This record gives sequence, structure tokens and C-alpha cells, in this order.
Amino acid sequence: MPRYKAVISYDGTNYAGFQIQNNAHTVQEEIENTLRRLNGGKSITIHPSGRTDSGVHAKGQVIHFDYPHEREAEKFRFALDTQTADDICFVSMEQVEDTFHARYLAKEKIYHYYVDTGQSRDPFKRLYSAHYRFDLDLDVMRQAAKYIEGEHDFSVFCATGSSVEDKTRNVYEVRIEETGDSGLLFIFRGNGFLYKMVRMLVGTLLKIGNEQLPTDAIKIALENQDKKMTGPTAHPEGLFLMNVSYE
Amino acid sequence: MPRYKAVISYDGTNYAGFQIQNNAHTVQEEIENTLRRLNGGKSITIHPSGRTDSGVHAKGQVIHFDYPHEREAEKFRFALDTQTADDICFVSMEQVEDTFHARYLAKEKIYHYYVDTGQSRDPFKRLYSAHYRFDLDLDVMRQAAKYIEGEHDFSVFCATGSSVEDKTRNVYEVRIEETGDSGLLFIFRGNGFLYKMVRMLVGTLLKIGNEQLPTDAIKIALENQDKKMTGPTAHPEGLFLMNVSYE
Repeated sequence: MPRYKAVISYDGTNYAGFQIQNNAHTVQEEIENTLRRLNGGKSITIHPSGRTDSGVHAKGQVIHFDYPHEREAEKFRFALDTQTADDICFVSMEQVEDTFHARYLAKEKIYHYYVDTGQSRDPFKRLYSAHYRFDLDLDVMRQAAKYIEGEHDFSVFCATGSSVEDKTRNVYEVRIEETGDSGLLFIFRGNGFLYKMVRMLVGTLLKIGNEQLPTDAIKIALENQDKKMTGPTAHPEGLFLMNVSYE
Repeated sequence: MPRYKAVISYDGTNYAGFQIQNNAHTVQEEIENTLRRLNGGKSITIHPSGRTDSGVHAKGQVIHFDYPHEREAEKFRFALDTQTADDICFVSMEQVEDTFHARYLAKEKIYHYYVDTGQSRDPFKRLYSAHYRFDLDLDVMRQAAKYIEGEHDFSVFCATGSSVEDKTRNVYEVRIEETGDSGLLFIFRGNGFLYKMVRMLVGTLLKIGNEQLPTDAIKIALENQDKKMTGPTAHPEGLFLMNVSYE
């Protein structure tokens, strides 16, 4: 059966996350409903590079699925793009070998996290960034972010509810940029991220930047798996899955 | 009674426009409800520089209102900012002379209109721009925009339902810029704009850019009040009231 790979973007505001579940509207459900209509009522299952939580956005999520008919990729993309809801976009699509797997073969992921640091919350950022209106020392946060980079056991930055056994991940880069409109952008690049790991790291970096935790809190947290050295989980609306790379 | 002037911004997505009405949630209602709570249950009426329609946004709307108590402006702003809904923001506030009037004394307004010209509609622009995926000749649109500038009777670009008698307005400037992310930004600056005038002008400029109307369509429309030389009213979600100036 032909296998297709698609890059999709979605505004997560109105979804209870990616993964299908009962009694809640999800990205997977919306896409699978569309595929079933195109496939004459027969179900198709899609596989993402990883789930995203309720309210989290994506600009470069990757999915794959098997479809019983050969279709010209650009026409297939257009059909899916126009027939899914307005808040889901099929950016690109191609037919791939049946050995391709969106999750198992992902080599690198990039996440962005936006924080609105304005005194009053910007109405146009409220769905796409977290609001933090207290003092932040950017230099201190940048020093602290260095302790995230490299290969570590990130168990202390993994929310309960994860079934993953090996919690070692390699984070290649963490960068914090000013966006020029009273905002901060946190960029995370690594070989993979645990359940809520990026949001827990951002919550911890904000607490460090506000001097509620020491600059080396993340170093201590990782070395001793010390939960007291971590901050709260940052809100979902600031998080964007930007890119997934394959070999 | 002390009079206050406030600059407010709001995401119009979830409102049936600015002006209060029965059985629909409006910006005015949300703000007046908050003011009534602060004022011990007694009603306060707010006056905007002009209404905005359902789905239209504002980054620099100006309102004024009389309030029976003297309040420190910044504290008053903070109270209103935090107690109104998340999609309304009180940007700044000051006490003014009781001769100030947000509507009658407005000297200049600036509107922005965003068009997403990408092949597939960007989920993150869907609430903040109109989507137009057909060919557009930017040079032709810029030539056509020149005919808008100056003092004209804009009756042909005024939607029915307006009670304004004098439909002469002076448009100081119309500019069309590329936004760099498959988008166009239309900037309108003038002494005032009629009901749905900006959206009718954008709809006409798009039709000219797509060669469905001649380059001088707006010139002919204005000279002859010829409705056939105008395009459809562009969607509300692309429109932002950016600034209102006073002497």
C-alpha cells in the first residue's frame, strides 16, 4: 500500500491535543475523518512524529499514513488542505518508501516557545505565547540554558504519565532571543524531547531569570534528579513544534 | 465629573463588533460591565472614536467616558486591563478635559488591512488576515491606490445602513507593502472613513490586481458613483484600527 509523508501546521487552540481520544476534538480525529471521506468511508490511521498537548501548536509536524490508492502528491495535499478545518494546513506532501516512519526515524526536532513579557498582555499574543510580566535577567537565563545542552537523563523534566523507559536525550542547542516586541523566543533543538520537557525547562528558566532559583538550578536538578530545583510547567499556548528532521 | 481617555486594543474574533446590542457579545458591553462593577453597580457609558464591525480588530482604538470618582490614571488602567477579558487590553489611559470627545475631535485615523496570499491558508493568520490565493499585480494595485488619495465623495464605497450625511472624506495616503511571509499589508491614513469603506476599497483593489477591473476603476467609480466599478467588501478579519490622532 502506498505510504505518504506530510508536513502539517496547526493552531492548537481549539484542539484537545494531537492524539485521538473520546469526547474531545483532536487534530488526529480531524485529519482521519477527512481521509476516511476521501477513501470512500474506510478508516485510515495517521502516525505523527510525536503527539502535541492540548493548546500546543505546530508549524512543522510530520505524519505518515498508508493509503490504498496511488495519488499525485500535490493534488492529494490540496484535497487534504482544503477539506480539513481552517486551523490545520497541509504544507507539503510526498510519497515515501514503506520503511519510512514519522516517529521511529525522526533524528532531530526543533521547538519554539514564546513568552510575552509586556506589562499588559497583548490580545494578539494571548493564544500564541505565555505571559510573564515579572523581572527577568536574560544573561542569567542564557547561562542557565547552557546546562541543558548535551546528553543527560532528563527524568526530572518529564511529566508523569509518560511510558518511555529511556529518559536520556541529547539537546544540541538552547537559545533565547528577544523578539523586539516585548517578547522572548526560546529555541530548543535536540534528538528528542520527553513528555512536557520543553515546557518544564521553560518554566524553570523563567524562575531562574526571576531569581527564585539559582543560576545552576538545572545543573543540580539533572545531576541529583532534584525536583525542588525545577519550576512549574509553562503554559501550552507558547509552544510550537517547528521542525522534524529525518536522515 | 472627571473624564478619562483610554487607548485600547482588542482581538475582534469573539465579538459581534464594538457597539452594544441585544443578544450578542460586544466590546462595549464587556468594558461597560467592568466599569459598572468598579463603580459599585452604577452604569457608565463609553464613547469610541468610531465603531468597528464584527470580527474587526483594533490596536489603537480610543474611547472616553465620565467617571464619578477621581482615580490615579495608571492604577485605573491596570484595574480595567486585568478585569476585562483577555482579548481586550487597556494600553494607556489619562484624565482629560471634559471638552475632549473621542469621536468628534478625531483628526486622523490609520487602518491596516492584511491579506494572506499563500497558496494554502496559514492557520496562524486565519483570524488576522483575509486569504486571497489568486494572481495579483502589485504595480497595478499601487497605481490604482493613488486614485483613492485626496478629498472625494466616497458614497460609492459606503455600505448601506450608514446614517452619515456628508460622505466626503480626505484620504491622505494609501500604501501597499509586502510583509515578507506571503502577505500584503494595505495602509490607509485619512481624516475619517465611512461604514465599511476600507474593506470595500481593499476588495476593489484586489479585483483590480487580479485584472477583473481596469486600473482606473476607482477613479471612474468615484467620478460617476458607479457601483459596477467596485469589488466586494473584503472580509472583516484582515482589518485593524491602528491609530486615532487628536489635535
